[in-house]
Amino acid sequence: MRTFIIKANEAHTRPDFKLNDLPGTSGRIDVLCRFINSAFLLSHGFRKNVRVWLLLYGPPEPPKAIRFEGSRLKVRLNPDERSTARLIVKALKAGGGLREPGKEVEVYPGLYVSNRTFEDVVRLTLKNSAIYYLHEEGRPITDIRFSQNVAFVLGDHKGLSPEDEAFLDGIAERVSVGRKSYLASHVVAYINIFLDSLPNPP
Amino acid sequence: MRTFIIKANEAHTRPDFKLNDLPGTSGRIDVLCRFINSAFLLSHGFRKNVRVWLLLYGPPEPPKAIRFEGSRLKVRLNPDERSTARLIVKALKAGGGLREPGKEVEVYPGLYVSNRTFEDVVRLTLKNSAIYYLHEEGRPITDIRFSQNVAFVLGDHKGLSPEDEAFLDGIAERVSVGRKSYLASHVVAYINIFLDSLPNPP
Repeated sequence: MRTFIIKANEAHTRPDFKLNDLPGTSGRIDVLCRFINSAFLLSHGFRKNVRVWLLLYGPPEPPKAIRFEGSRLKVRLNPDERSTARLIVKALKAGGGLREPGKEVEVYPGLYVSNRTFEDVVRLTLKNSAIYYLHEEGRPITDIRFSQNVAFVLGDHKGLSPEDEAFLDGIAERVSVGRKSYLASHVVAYINIFLDSLPNPP
Repeated sequence: MRTFIIKANEAHTRPDFKLNDLPGTSGRIDVLCRFINSAFLLSHGFRKNVRVWLLLYGPPEPPKAIRFEGSRLKVRLNPDERSTARLIVKALKAGGGLREPGKEVEVYPGLYVSNRTFEDVVRLTLKNSAIYYLHEEGRPITDIRFSQNVAFVLGDHKGLSPEDEAFLDGIAERVSVGRKSYLASHVVAYINIFLDSLPNPP
């Protein structure tokens, strides 16, 4: 089981953006669409052993946590940004009236929205997965022995804050896929292919 | 120097498609946009040592060859599909009146269009690069010693034809990034990060 968690500091938490201009109007929800693409899609298939948490922290009602659960997902994931953005819009609409912090609303089978925080989601994930924080100065991913349930935390194009990093210290080991600073979607594509190559892949 | 070549069998060769529905109207030019993203983009930067050839073989005027030359590219590449699709539209417009097979038109500095065929482009690339054909049953990429100029040939979502594969036999070594069938953009993201990790990266 592979979990990918991304904290998107500016991603809008109400569907007030234009699908025709995601980079300019949504707080970079296009980044999240490519993240989903890399996490789940194969050339002619779909990774059922993947869970993705999108943590949206942009205006006007942060946080919103959107969970894509590969093992249960019934809605079709297409590779293009626009169709994934439509699913995020659906989730934000469904989550608009949410008040309770712990309650999760099912948008479609396998797609959920809640007001959970980044810290909530990391703590929840810690219960059954080893957590890794992707960081340029972390331990090389090729040196790590992965267990069966692994979770990776990534920042968006602005990265995680010092407070987020302090929270992760002691919880998540820092791992690196290289010394350059890569786009989150590229890192996830790399990790998936890399994990597939292991003798006993998570 | 890294070259990535993709043959897109259905990608439209006139800009007769809708930016709002690339997957449904363009013969999957969205696939090419994500390919460009993976080939060139870093988190806060751009790979100047990359060249991409898009070989478009869809209706109505195949082939069109669009070349993105990292070392000379002056136009800004954004990560989202739509803005890259706009560059492809510009290139197809500029290439609309082309008759001569060998002539290349400069659309912007570093962006070119021509009527070159897949075979033309592979032969041209062979002059200064070792060519690899990405194939599930190829030699593992981790076993290969790469020289300074490398080129990778990929099929689109439908793959290369038996004729294309016969043409590549003896020209291009088959290499594999894993036993699953991956999306072209994921393979390119993986290869770039993998090559970066080598002691003397191309």
